Amino acid sequence: MPADRIAEQLAFLAEIDALKSVVRQSPLVNRSRRENSAEHSWHLAMFALVLGEDEAVDTGRVIQLLLVHDIVEIDAGDAPIHENHDPAEIEARENAAAERLFGLLPEDQAGKLRALWREFEAAETPEARFAKALDRLQPLLLNTLTGGGTWAENRVSEQQVHERYGPTIARGSTELWQHARELVRAHFNRADTPSS
Amino acid sequence: MPADRIAEQLAFLAEIDALKSVVRQSPLVNRSRRENSAEHSWHLAMFALVLGEDEAVDTGRVIQLLLVHDIVEIDAGDAPIHENHDPAEIEARENAAAERLFGLLPEDQAGKLRALWREFEAAETPEARFAKALDRLQPLLLNTLTGGGTWAENRVSEQQVHERYGPTIARGSTELWQHARELVRAHFNRADTPSS
Repeated sequence: MPADRIAEQLAFLAEIDALKSVVRQSPLVNRSRRENSAEHSWHLAMFALVLGEDEAVDTGRVIQLLLVHDIVEIDAGDAPIHENHDPAEIEARENAAAERLFGLLPEDQAGKLRALWREFEAAETPEARFAKALDRLQPLLLNTLTGGGTWAENRVSEQQVHERYGPTIARGSTELWQHARELVRAHFNRADTPSS
Repeated sequence: MPADRIAEQLAFLAEIDALKSVVRQSPLVNRSRRENSAEHSWHLAMFALVLGEDEAVDTGRVIQLLLVHDIVEIDAGDAPIHENHDPAEIEARENAAAERLFGLLPEDQAGKLRALWREFEAAETPEARFAKALDRLQPLLLNTLTGGGTWAENRVSEQQVHERYGPTIARGSTELWQHARELVRAHFNRADTPSS
């Protein structure tokens, strides 16, 4: 490796340190604060390592997709699931972010990481579908472990949880959605919030 | 997957959320706070994805080693590099932590994740040696980007940086150590701290 290749790689790795300061809506399990996108990405990679048991899905690739999937938020910010957004505006912001951030890398690697991010966003390969499912399952789990988390804050009903989480999780794994739905059911049975 | 297998897996994934609350010594690049071990693990996995260019080293396995390498800190705590420790005591605490934490998983996966952690600790395979090198390189980079970070706080000299970071980084990659040594040199040239 030439020295300037390593210099570009380290400049990128220094820049993405900023993902540790992008705060998401989800609470930590101990409710001490909200989660950031860097530790969320680690948690998701662990979800893949543990739950990735379908031999038709390449778990190593799922992990790569999850490690890079939120990096664009450094420039584009996080778009909370329970708020309204303009999809075209988000897409434009995230595309510009992917150009700038991955563009810090040597050209071959910039192309490779942009391709991983686009694969995740497109959700067409089995790996991307499973990665997307985990990205919905993890905040669902955090909410059920914290008395409702973002559902309680946003007065989200059980029916809305099904609509906003179900299709993406089921598309990646029907088994995981079956299990997650039971957790959701148990949560809304416990909670005072109306379960519509 | 039987439902109780998924239940055990999710119980483990909920438990390791606590790694987000284990605070390390290293500062973030923007100096807003210290880094935690979960986001540090994500950052290291990205180091592996970008710097893992030696075809004789399995980058996917390096990433797995780095994802799990700090999980024992949930019970055992972080052992800062610039403080004195009793290695036998740390080892005993970390072994007990590995038994309890990975033991939450189904038995086959408990064995697999314990083996990854032991492989990292032993630093004998090429993958573990590279993972260990990145685990030293990342805080070194953060320190050079923040006016000295933990070196300034602990009055660590350039010679001590060489002794505490050099062997581990060089054992994983002589090229990376060559580059890192230049960064260290430039830092101590700028800094007021004595460079012995």
